[in-house]
Amino acid sequence: MTTRKDCLDRDAQDALAPLREHFDLPAGVIYLDGNSLGARPKAALTRASDVIAREWGKDLITSWNTAGWFELPKRLGDRLAPLIGAAAGEVVVTDTTSLNLFKVLAAALHMQASDPARSERRVIVTERSNFPTDIYMAQGLAGWLQRGYSVRLVDTVDELPQAIDADTAVVMLTHVNYRTGYQHDMASTSALAHARGALIVWDLAHSAGAVPVALERDGADFAVGCTYKYLNGGPGAPAFAWVPRKHQARFQQPLSGWWGHAAPFAMAPDFAPTEGIGRALCGTQPIVSLAMVECGLDVFAQTTMDAVRAKSLALTDLFIALVEERCAGHGLGLVTPREHARRGSQVSFTHAHGYAVMAALIARGVIGDYREPAIMRFGFTPLYTSFADVWDAVEILKQILDEKAYDVHAERGAVT
Amino acid sequence: MTTRKDCLDRDAQDALAPLREHFDLPAGVIYLDGNSLGARPKAALTRASDVIAREWGKDLITSWNTAGWFELPKRLGDRLAPLIGAAAGEVVVTDTTSLNLFKVLAAALHMQASDPARSERRVIVTERSNFPTDIYMAQGLAGWLQRGYSVRLVDTVDELPQAIDADTAVVMLTHVNYRTGYQHDMASTSALAHARGALIVWDLAHSAGAVPVALERDGADFAVGCTYKYLNGGPGAPAFAWVPRKHQARFQQPLSGWWGHAAPFAMAPDFAPTEGIGRALCGTQPIVSLAMVECGLDVFAQTTMDAVRAKSLALTDLFIALVEERCAGHGLGLVTPREHARRGSQVSFTHAHGYAVMAALIARGVIGDYREPAIMRFGFTPLYTSFADVWDAVEILKQILDEKAYDVHAERGAVT
Repeated sequence: MTTRKDCLDRDAQDALAPLREHFDLPAGVIYLDGNSLGARPKAALTRASDVIAREWGKDLITSWNTAGWFELPKRLGDRLAPLIGAAAGEVVVTDTTSLNLFKVLAAALHMQASDPARSERRVIVTERSNFPTDIYMAQGLAGWLQRGYSVRLVDTVDELPQAIDADTAVVMLTHVNYRTGYQHDMASTSALAHARGALIVWDLAHSAGAVPVALERDGADFAVGCTYKYLNGGPGAPAFAWVPRKHQARFQQPLSGWWGHAAPFAMAPDFAPTEGIGRALCGTQPIVSLAMVECGLDVFAQTTMDAVRAKSLALTDLFIALVEERCAGHGLGLVTPREHARRGSQVSFTHAHGYAVMAALIARGVIGDYREPAIMRFGFTPLYTSFADVWDAVEILKQILDEKAYDVHAERGAVT
Repeated sequence: MTTRKDCLDRDAQDALAPLREHFDLPAGVIYLDGNSLGARPKAALTRASDVIAREWGKDLITSWNTAGWFELPKRLGDRLAPLIGAAAGEVVVTDTTSLNLFKVLAAALHMQASDPARSERRVIVTERSNFPTDIYMAQGLAGWLQRGYSVRLVDTVDELPQAIDADTAVVMLTHVNYRTGYQHDMASTSALAHARGALIVWDLAHSAGAVPVALERDGADFAVGCTYKYLNGGPGAPAFAWVPRKHQARFQQPLSGWWGHAAPFAMAPDFAPTEGIGRALCGTQPIVSLAMVECGLDVFAQTTMDAVRAKSLALTDLFIALVEERCAGHGLGLVTPREHARRGSQVSFTHAHGYAVMAALIARGVIGDYREPAIMRFGFTPLYTSFADVWDAVEILKQILDEKAYDVHAERGAVT
């Protein structure tokens, strides 16, 4: 039987434990929602203050050049690239995940339409359980393209091989499911898509900074992702897009704003795309929010994704074991795969009163979140979550369940 | 003859002069580039620090609700609305000007395509001199829609009446030209578009906070604009979109992300647009950059656009008069209209060595900017520009020209 002392001992042995010092975490809180909004790197306030007071306030317009504001999407992209198995010059941090998905989906459809052997393919295949905005953006794109484009939803992973057929232009999947924590096998699924003549787009919202990702090695065609979850970039921080070098020359997308132009300050009246990853850029970026993304990346630079992954699996294994041992008989159902290779960095349990139980947890300082239907999500972020945090969170969950200390009539607001 | 003392006297009489105290402006700088990047409201640093340290750092994920992050695009839109003659519930602050233009253009084309009497119209009419990203976004949209959509560029304002014809679906104009400072007559041009069966979209990038705008009264159909110029929202701060109530029910656009969904947290697999202005939203917004927009709006709340306009015209009149009087014979050519009704809040002069002269001005602390071809731009921002600033800027310009103290071989970097 694991004890709290065992957890403290593991923390004492944990090479990542010192990284917690880089984060500002409120006292009395066990934060298990870094999969939704990452905690604040202490450096973020210093960085933002410098951007606001000096770069904006003192240097004003000149900061577009002298402070490198124009280059920030590419410079941060280069820093993010190693975390997802990408090369320099292949990633930009810009806009939102939804918009970046629109860009790469549009580009992928265009590539297929330009290939005589594939030009009749009109279907985007994805999962019904995908994060909704991904499906909505695909529907928006397909609906506006007309010409027979449509989105095909599969209900289970097992249906994918059958659903990816000769009509499929693009497969669009989220690598780690936001609700269940299920992790796709990127290599085999990408290979499947390619074998059927489709391109594959991966959404790394719950992967970047959470699990090792090897986009290039595993045969992805395009990817997008989020910086404000595991990467700790700040609320609503700009997202990222990955366009591998092999696809850049053919990369065309309709959100063709001036930041994607070959010579933005020539002020020419016709759009001419720049070379390289800049083609995924569109308009002027929110510099203060963007600049803070670097503070999260700075912490990752002090470790490796393999080390993060090893601790993540240890934390999630421990959480599953403790919940099943100490909260047995309370009707919790594990949703997240036990198999390491299929698990992201979160653990989800169903409970008939999941919403109310989560509200009670939050009231006692254990911050996870809730997703319809009936799913309590707990995110584990090895940079700042300890083994003792896991123990304590389970103990509080156990108390709430033992005492039925939750309000089953709690109004369903947005527990994000 | 005007003297510097006259200018100081006017400053002493200026009811807006005290508002300068709300801005952080570096010593020794005369900032005439607020039309490109507005100066920093002192409150912006305080606000950002609170968002970062407390809302993000302490309250973490709960701030989406408790700090009102989700509602920020609409709440700031409601505060911005009076500055542009719009009603509450008709404006959101979100994404970028380029993206918002894409949304409203797409929606306008869709409205026309849905009207049996107008469904064959396929042309977007705009000016070749429009800010390039506006043209690029229209080209991107038209190219992707196919079905015969195209962008028609007119070379002069006088050609507009002829160019807006029975094929015209949408007229897209920037209200105040970024290069020349020319201001369109919104009422008559909107009426012209409507008389020809077209809808009209206005870009207010150089109008919002610069000149009085009455979108509703003047018959606009849609509008977008920028918050980081005259509105002082901060570098790259999110832009705005206006969709009047009369068009909201028919407003459909392809960037259909979850923030525009009727029930974003129901996580339904099909997109269903929300009611109202929320249809112009797409994905998660950069909260820190977004929150600072309010600090600029707070300053505008202490005056009126009529008062701002009166001072703006006085400043630009004075600048034109002083330059023409004191820099006569140096080959400067006024580009900006002398007629008040046709002038924005900037003054542009051509000069054969405009780039070099502007570089010399900046080196001496007079910050304007340069736009191809050969145009020096000077923006006048009544909230923080004084009459003495105008005098001093002209004196420095005069010295540079008298002494030919500029390097005609200056390398053309980006003078933004």
